[in-house]
Amino acid sequence: MKLYTSHRAPNPRRVRWVMAEKGVDNVDFVEIDLLSGQHRTADYRAKVGVPHVPALELDDGTFISESIAICRYLEALNPEPNLFGHDAKEQALIEMWTRRCEIYLANPMMLNVRFSHPALAALEAPQPQVAEYSRVGAEKFMRLLDRQLAEHQFIAADRFTIADIVAAVGLDFARLVKYRPPEEFTHLARWLEACRARPAAKAGV
Amino acid sequence: MKLYTSHRAPNPRRVRWVMAEKGVDNVDFVEIDLLSGQHRTADYRAKVGVPHVPALELDDGTFISESIAICRYLEALNPEPNLFGHDAKEQALIEMWTRRCEIYLANPMMLNVRFSHPALAALEAPQPQVAEYSRVGAEKFMRLLDRQLAEHQFIAADRFTIADIVAAVGLDFARLVKYRPPEEFTHLARWLEACRARPAAKAGV
Repeated sequence: MKLYTSHRAPNPRRVRWVMAEKGVDNVDFVEIDLLSGQHRTADYRAKVGVPHVPALELDDGTFISESIAICRYLEALNPEPNLFGHDAKEQALIEMWTRRCEIYLANPMMLNVRFSHPALAALEAPQPQVAEYSRVGAEKFMRLLDRQLAEHQFIAADRFTIADIVAAVGLDFARLVKYRPPEEFTHLARWLEACRARPAAKAGV
Repeated sequence: MKLYTSHRAPNPRRVRWVMAEKGVDNVDFVEIDLLSGQHRTADYRAKVGVPHVPALELDDGTFISESIAICRYLEALNPEPNLFGHDAKEQALIEMWTRRCEIYLANPMMLNVRFSHPALAALEAPQPQVAEYSRVGAEKFMRLLDRQLAEHQFIAADRFTIADIVAAVGLDFARLVKYRPPEEFTHLARWLEACRARPAAKAGV
């Protein structure tokens, strides 16, 4: 299998992190340079369908895009350590928290970076109103997350899961614009430190 | 089990549609009035965690929010007809298309309605710039979807799946602001008509 990936981009890092947690070593990496537009070439689009990284090419030539779809596929092939839940109820709670972390934290922080970082103006015109709206929404969610982490070591279960990866990658990416979560969220800070200290956190950075 | 739901809201409709396709009949409905803010009461927030519908209350008192997490849970309890895929590869392709339809079509169209419909100004101030940005993005994706539907009867597999539900509900919701997809997308139009003609499409409307 081949993973089309890009250093510094947050969504490929989710997949790299999952692979490192699971010790997956049968995937080759193909580095795609986003700033020079390698993901927008006719060749890349024809293969993947969309101008996005990451994409996983299976040995039969099938392409899978969307980072969480790729991560869940890798979990099916490499069940341990379990990141998506053992039974239907645990899977539902982990997916609930993963989606909350994506929709209300990671995606808004990515929009914030994308529409406010000067170097990314090469890809798309800065939109300060969208950047600001996104940050405000993300911080509203951080308050909920801080309350959850006051009572739980990790976000979605009694162990590290895909929800933690999504949230930590989202916050890490915002360091590109020197963003730091509000200091009042002390439980969030403790959890983020613990995520960053995991050996697998270094994959794809 | 109880489903906290709201007529006209798009995300609860995804769950109602899945239930109707599967003939699920052991779930009671609790109608939440969004315009009067029933989802923002302290009681609702304390139970669900977030001010959102839908939420599924299990018989043991656990609450699951996020529509796709609920749908996947209902699939685990009621496997037929299969909407999320049989094996790992099919599941990955269906999740890929479901996420594309959510992120690039349904969510932007919801933002478009939310920030441009006069009646929804009671919930949140209109933001014309966000509404416009969202519509433009969604139509870019509709072009890709139209090409996919030129070669396939349904979006993600050779049968109706959760990806079709997410896309059709997103486009249907935009009818609130009298939105219609561009007429050039003839394959999209044919597919949308077929989705709307399914008996289960009437659930939760």
